Amino acid sequence: MTDLTRTLGCCYYPEHWPRSVWAEDARRMAETGLTWVRIGEFAWGRLEPAPGELRFDWLDEAIWTLGEAGLKVVLGTPTATPPRWVLDKHPDMLAVDAMGRPRKFGSRRHYCFSHEGFAAESDRIVTLLAERYGRNEHVAAWQTDNEYGCHDTTISYSEAARVAFRGWLRRRYPGAGNDGDIDALNAAWGNVFWSMDYRDFDEIDLPNLTVTEPNPAHALAFRRFSSDQVVAFNRRQVEIIRARSDAPITHNYMGRITDFDHFAVGADLDFASWDSYPLGFLEDRAGASVETQRAYARQGDPDFQALHHDLYRAVGRGRMWVMEQQPGPVNWAPHNPAPLPGMVRLWSWEAFAHGAECVSYFRWRQAPFAQEQLHSGLLRPDSQPAPGLEEAAQVAREIAQAPLVAHAPSEVAIVFDYDADFAWTVQPHGAGLSYFGLVLDLYKAMRALGLSIDILPATTRDFTGYRLIVAPGLMHMSEALKQALTGAGAEVLIGPRSAARNADMSIPVPLPPAIPGLDVTVSHVESLRPDCPEPLDQCGAFTLYREALEGTAKVVERTASGTPAVMREGRITYMGGWPDAQVARRIIASLCERAGLDTLVLPEGVRRRDTGAERFWFNHSTESTQVEGLELPPLSVTRQTL
Amino acid sequence: MTDLTRTLGCCYYPEHWPRSVWAEDARRMAETGLTWVRIGEFAWGRLEPAPGELRFDWLDEAIWTLGEAGLKVVLGTPTATPPRWVLDKHPDMLAVDAMGRPRKFGSRRHYCFSHEGFAAESDRIVTLLAERYGRNEHVAAWQTDNEYGCHDTTISYSEAARVAFRGWLRRRYPGAGNDGDIDALNAAWGNVFWSMDYRDFDEIDLPNLTVTEPNPAHALAFRRFSSDQVVAFNRRQVEIIRARSDAPITHNYMGRITDFDHFAVGADLDFASWDSYPLGFLEDRAGASVETQRAYARQGDPDFQALHHDLYRAVGRGRMWVMEQQPGPVNWAPHNPAPLPGMVRLWSWEAFAHGAECVSYFRWRQAPFAQEQLHSGLLRPDSQPAPGLEEAAQVAREIAQAPLVAHAPSEVAIVFDYDADFAWTVQPHGAGLSYFGLVLDLYKAMRALGLSIDILPATTRDFTGYRLIVAPGLMHMSEALKQALTGAGAEVLIGPRSAARNADMSIPVPLPPAIPGLDVTVSHVESLRPDCPEPLDQCGAFTLYREALEGTAKVVERTASGTPAVMREGRITYMGGWPDAQVARRIIASLCERAGLDTLVLPEGVRRRDTGAERFWFNHSTESTQVEGLELPPLSVTRQTL
Amino acid sequence: MTDLTRTLGCCYYPEHWPRSVWAEDARRMAETGLTWVRIGEFAWGRLEPAPGELRFDWLDEAIWTLGEAGLKVVLGTPTATPPRWVLDKHPDMLAVDAMGRPRKFGSRRHYCFSHEGFAAESDRIVTLLAERYGRNEHVAAWQTDNEYGCHDTTISYSEAARVAFRGWLRRRYPGAGNDGDIDALNAAWGNVFWSMDYRDFDEIDLPNLTVTEPNPAHALAFRRFSSDQVVAFNRRQVEIIRARSDAPITHNYMGRITDFDHFAVGADLDFASWDSYPLGFLEDRAGASVETQRAYARQGDPDFQALHHDLYRAVGRGRMWVMEQQPGPVNWAPHNPAPLPGMVRLWSWEAFAHGAECVSYFRWRQAPFAQEQLHSGLLRPDSQPAPGLEEAAQVAREIAQAPLVAHAPSEVAIVFDYDADFAWTVQPHGAGLSYFGLVLDLYKAMRALGLSIDILPATTRDFTGYRLIVAPGLMHMSEALKQALTGAGAEVLIGPRSAARNADMSIPVPLPPAIPGLDVTVSHVESLRPDCPEPLDQCGAFTLYREALEGTAKVVERTASGTPAVMREGRITYMGGWPDAQVARRIIASLCERAGLDTLVLPEGVRRRDTGAERFWFNHSTESTQVEGLELPPLSVTRQTL
Repeated sequence: MTDLTRTLGCCYYPEHWPRSVWAEDARRMAETGLTWVRIGEFAWGRLEPAPGELRFDWLDEAIWTLGEAGLKVVLGTPTATPPRWVLDKHPDMLAVDAMGRPRKFGSRRHYCFSHEGFAAESDRIVTLLAERYGRNEHVAAWQTDNEYGCHDTTISYSEAARVAFRGWLRRRYPGAGNDGDIDALNAAWGNVFWSMDYRDFDEIDLPNLTVTEPNPAHALAFRRFSSDQVVAFNRRQVEIIRARSDAPITHNYMGRITDFDHFAVGADLDFASWDSYPLGFLEDRAGASVETQRAYARQGDPDFQALHHDLYRAVGRGRMWVMEQQPGPVNWAPHNPAPLPGMVRLWSWEAFAHGAECVSYFRWRQAPFAQEQLHSGLLRPDSQPAPGLEEAAQVAREIAQAPLVAHAPSEVAIVFDYDADFAWTVQPHGAGLSYFGLVLDLYKAMRALGLSIDILPATTRDFTGYRLIVAPGLMHMSEALKQALTGAGAEVLIGPRSAARNADMSIPVPLPPAIPGLDVTVSHVESLRPDCPEPLDQCGAFTLYREALEGTAKVVERTASGTPAVMREGRITYMGGWPDAQVARRIIASLCERAGLDTLVLPEGVRRRDTGAERFWFNHSTESTQVEGLELPPLSVTRQTL
Repeated sequence: MTDLTRTLGCCYYPEHWPRSVWAEDARRMAETGLTWVRIGEFAWGRLEPAPGELRFDWLDEAIWTLGEAGLKVVLGTPTATPPRWVLDKHPDMLAVDAMGRPRKFGSRRHYCFSHEGFAAESDRIVTLLAERYGRNEHVAAWQTDNEYGCHDTTISYSEAARVAFRGWLRRRYPGAGNDGDIDALNAAWGNVFWSMDYRDFDEIDLPNLTVTEPNPAHALAFRRFSSDQVVAFNRRQVEIIRARSDAPITHNYMGRITDFDHFAVGADLDFASWDSYPLGFLEDRAGASVETQRAYARQGDPDFQALHHDLYRAVGRGRMWVMEQQPGPVNWAPHNPAPLPGMVRLWSWEAFAHGAECVSYFRWRQAPFAQEQLHSGLLRPDSQPAPGLEEAAQVAREIAQAPLVAHAPSEVAIVFDYDADFAWTVQPHGAGLSYFGLVLDLYKAMRALGLSIDILPATTRDFTGYRLIVAPGLMHMSEALKQALTGAGAEVLIGPRSAARNADMSIPVPLPPAIPGLDVTVSHVESLRPDCPEPLDQCGAFTLYREALEGTAKVVERTASGTPAVMREGRITYMGGWPDAQVARRIIASLCERAGLDTLVLPEGVRRRDTGAERFWFNHSTESTQVEGLELPPLSVTRQTL
Repeated sequence: MTDLTRTLGCCYYPEHWPRSVWAEDARRMAETGLTWVRIGEFAWGRLEPAPGELRFDWLDEAIWTLGEAGLKVVLGTPTATPPRWVLDKHPDMLAVDAMGRPRKFGSRRHYCFSHEGFAAESDRIVTLLAERYGRNEHVAAWQTDNEYGCHDTTISYSEAARVAFRGWLRRRYPGAGNDGDIDALNAAWGNVFWSMDYRDFDEIDLPNLTVTEPNPAHALAFRRFSSDQVVAFNRRQVEIIRARSDAPITHNYMGRITDFDHFAVGADLDFASWDSYPLGFLEDRAGASVETQRAYARQGDPDFQALHHDLYRAVGRGRMWVMEQQPGPVNWAPHNPAPLPGMVRLWSWEAFAHGAECVSYFRWRQAPFAQEQLHSGLLRPDSQPAPGLEEAAQVAREIAQAPLVAHAPSEVAIVFDYDADFAWTVQPHGAGLSYFGLVLDLYKAMRALGLSIDILPATTRDFTGYRLIVAPGLMHMSEALKQALTGAGAEVLIGPRSAARNADMSIPVPLPPAIPGLDVTVSHVESLRPDCPEPLDQCGAFTLYREALEGTAKVVERTASGTPAVMREGRITYMGGWPDAQVARRIIASLCERAGLDTLVLPEGVRRRDTGAERFWFNHSTESTQVEGLELPPLSVTRQTL
């Protein structure tokens, strides 16, 4: 339990509307019960319509008007939308796609993270904003840029990226003087394999458009580099702002973006926030089955948002907001249905249950123009209330009764590692295999058993307080992590692919996972057709992927043909495949029993979440149901004080 | 009833065959009962094999030989196939695809409509032809170019297009002097949205390869511009010919091409013609279900051709030909089966029933070489009769018994608007949504009820004589059109998405449709998964798309959950979703009842069409059936005099 | 029966491992019973790490070490992996894909076959190797390059290819002096069709990125040219080696690569070899149904490898190896399961049953690094035995009991023609139609009847000894081939599409097949939807493709609607469509009966193969079964001496 209060907010674009309506908008926001208003993050073109021609007066007035109404401002840096003239100054600043095509001006996020000229423009505009508003009484928080990585923009195959990548490699494989050690790189990557040895770092190209797949070591290095470029870009903004403002700084991450290390970016932030679009995510990001997509078309996947809440709570070291909350239909998914009545409220409360300090709706009023004209807001384009407004107001009334942000560490944790996701992406080994998907499947199994979950980065060394740690698919495990897990005093579930590669993406010898105190060896691996799962002895199966296990550890589960499927030594359990829902639940349930954790098999669509002080029940289903004597109406939130 | 007679024709390529066979070919054409022969439209390379080296003698002889046999010639301008040397003179004349790749020489239609150098070459060769043959006694009609837009050639992302688009925008948003008003454009497009404001028209790029979707206003403007370029290109040809010939001028449109305004091109023509390939269209253009594709694999979709006949009758202001009629298997569809016996006759009569003056088979003799060597003709490559020849001869005998082109206005109309199709394409809002598809679905419902239909452009203001007007999906509705429809004295069906955008692709405020005398407001919209339709109260459902409706108009249909689905005030009915076949028929049937129009539920595969003087029954099914006491044999045409 | 012995081998990369382990590796290879070891084919970077800087000492030692252990070396030329510096010397040597993108360095096979500069580098390195090792006592065979055509590398749209193609065309259409006859080309291709006539060979571009399909004559010429470039490239290597060594020369072909003429390359070799990856092939190359893919996910398609064995026995004029045999899971297929126990042995024996002299496993030890780190070997990365090792050792023990390579000509042959495959690829006429697929379907039908099959090139003129010749889909048939087949004294099955095009890809007149002594004419053709097969009178159907047949030949089978389906005159049977499995078996069975050949309907998954001296039974199924009184255990090989 902290002394922070639960708040609501919205995203607002004063530059989209006549000044005459700002005050009335602000008044209605406050009346709705909103506390925060985020502004400015796409306004570069109106702040600096031509090089050096600064027009901050309107923003001064907008901030003042909102502040006067009692609202607190989150001010965004506008670097996600550099105006056309920035491109004219730096014609090679565009990101380049994997097919070698520059990604043109005309939407947003068209810059390459590696372009120094653009980075300098970013420094300049951020400095100007921080200097002007750093001490503004109404600017109570900052947001850097907007949704790094959205629209597949983390990775760029530009000339700027090529040059920067070579420098990054020189530093990763350092040699004498300022230059790198190219022999070290060749050895680490196994470039001998197809005569791919380099004689100089300047011979190294970006790993796109190769005849067949590039060296996975090469591809992984490029992904790590690309991630580091995002971290560095963000850090420049943070440092500029922090030198000029005491307000906390955040970034609004986008859901299901895993191609840069959110923990590493988050380390520079004061709190994390993310943009939650449950219906938008359902069809193309949540990896849900067709049945789930149909059943939850207007509710969203029951676990996908929760996973992100838990993840960003970790990224923010305990502090998390939803910066953009879907309030009605969006415009960008394959299909864009309206949420069922009650879902906006349910999603809001779910965020609070997972520790959110603020839920901020995107956006205040639907814009009648441009790309997102079919993205609903709390108001319709004609300023009439949209269906989400009343639900937001209801939440505002309800949080007044439960104002404090309550959260306590859980007893159950999942370790999430972006580097593992990079490695699985570079080398899935079979169609349909993804690290994120594996984590989500285990998260679902844990949620279906009623558990409340913390997410931890792979850099965690102190697991005190956890009784169950689930750490699947960590392809890279440092010795320190292995040691921390084996010494955690908790039940630990690892595998498949745990420690399967060394830091340069080679198979280590002795073979994986090579964990002291766990006599299990993965002797070979196989990926499986979806219609050829490997049945286990009891029921259920490994799907898509399995490993052949050897060793003296105890065999906990076997395949139907009798080979080891899950093995355990002490408190470390190794799972030699991708479990289907049945197997995942069985393994988790048995580990909970060993750990002395209570589980409860929840009805379809029902989820619960305990904070330190409260227990929440969420029913995502359109049927009412009973659980533990409680009647849970359809699409409902039930809050109990513990 | 006009005094025009029904005729047949064929497409012929004298340049493909030795001169020695021309006379015999001509004789057999006449013997088969053909009147017309179209020639010349791909012959540029043989008319001008090198720059300025003109060889018209063979064409002189070919026209004379055909004319001597009693045939009338349609002479095509050969601009769809500029020879290689034209490209060498104008290396940048190639169209460029959306991925930025020039579309190379080696097939046809490789020119960009915006290239001035090529347009001058077009002027030159058309002038030469018109001067030589404008008064030729056998040249009784002209065809401009060939199938504008075929192979996705309307839209080009070339440098020439970029320059021309900027000029077009300057004219659309005029400012002082010759320059445009860039602020007006920025305001109209809502470029403030993502800092997309321009400072000059020369900053505006083509809307391809943007990071995420471009501004829909930008994309729509580019589509309108691209359409206008086709209109302008065609007009230059028409003006050159008309100054030198009194023969009527047409263009042969291709089926299911909607990316330029056929009405606007048609306004410059004397009559419209189109190329009808029922089996070729079935799999990839008619949008038919898999069941329909299977059931009608050798007959074609029962409504797709009819819709085009009606459309081109409108484009030709009452005058319509089928310039190319499929006579057997084609070569270019995913699968290319042979028509069932009788279908060539059925298709021919169907065209006449819809007002065609001529049905011209493509082609006289199958070419044994080059791209269309597997496209059948009336003759096989060895000059033996192909199966289609006898069916053509039978039609020739039959039209001698019913010679006059009979048509009278229908009492039922569909409004078709290319600009609406552009807008739906730019912003479908959900996978599977298309304006053409919506119109086709309603057309099918009307046909299944036995109605004969006129198609009208959205520029229509006088709806006199119509008792039912169906105008779905008109995203842009001028005030004049709204007024004309509300004052039409007919039952009018509009929606969904009617008047949903202003002329610059923004949502209007007050919200759509904002039609005086119809108190209906679309408060929000949603697109739906195909497996999540919105069931209606009675039976059937809205699929893929629906709108939330408000207002005081009478609720005619409700969704199963009780919200308004169809509303009516006076004689204007607003349909708030995409109806499935059941709903579409029910709505149309009830409107017909209100309008005092008779309907008849036709058996599967049976269609009827009334001209002013005749009633035709077509049975596309392989089963014979009875309707109104008539026995309709399989694959048959039955003609009744009214 | 020859005096050659059956041997085993493996692929080894001494450059991947410390010198210290070479001797032990060699010892274990010999102990396992291996005779051959292939090395060197990707080692250019270690042989010549910088231009002209030669380092052959390690290879000297490796060869010596292996030879000392009693192993014989196959030495590969390393031209499939030119080092980075070769590219720097020849920046335009990269192959270019059909979209116009250079295929970058970073994997392998990045050279264009038409690049003269690279060809000279290839000459140089091959010369150096041949001079140094041509007389080495341990180098007992040579392999040129590696898997020509793999990763779609036969065809390149580079500038070098464009220039070379023009030269090739000049030679194909020769004129006065050194120049070609452009009019002859225009006439042969039918370039009049869409004004595609050229005035000079230098106007001819490569047939990619055209607006719609290019002229099939153009596309076919480019495929033939591309094939010839591979032949010429290989021949240069062969000539260099042969001048310096008496050891036999081979190339390791890759399965299911049909875009160059393997017979033509094979004519320059001493024996053929191929790389057999049954599980890798199953999902993406064998064209197997989903049911087969599921049922044989861990066994591979029961006929696909056999077809290749027979094919390469023909390519090698009786001499065939498997140079790379899958020993466990591979890394590169959509899914990569492990073979069932026994399959490595079964695959090995299957190769021997089809005439292989050597089965060489790829690879000795799994590499822990680079692209193929998940490709298993006989040893694991930690040098422990992988599951395949013991099966290889078992085969080694078994061949000691049956040492001689036994094969005798079969009485049944399939004619396989790469040029036909080019033509079907250029002009499939319907989705799903492929020449290779048609041949495979007929091969499967013949195998299911227990036949042992020879494959013959279309250049065969002497068919002595064959009683049944199956020659489907030969789009190009020379008069000499027609004559040889009709005079073969065997039952001959041809069609569909036999002799359907002349040498320049035009339909011949008189219409096909125009075979003297067979009064059958294909009057028209149609391609069919998979769900619209053409049922035959008895049972089964033609799928995807059928032809309308005329003529006085006897109708052997009819369609359900009574039209001729299969016709026969004398001993030539013409099949007017693509038979489904039922029809294919019925036609083959009836021809066998006419030819006096015994057939036996084999149970699902069972196949047999007769050599001159032995009969082999293979059971690919996981069930045991009985056939002719024999009990065939699951996944078993049964060898009977005849």
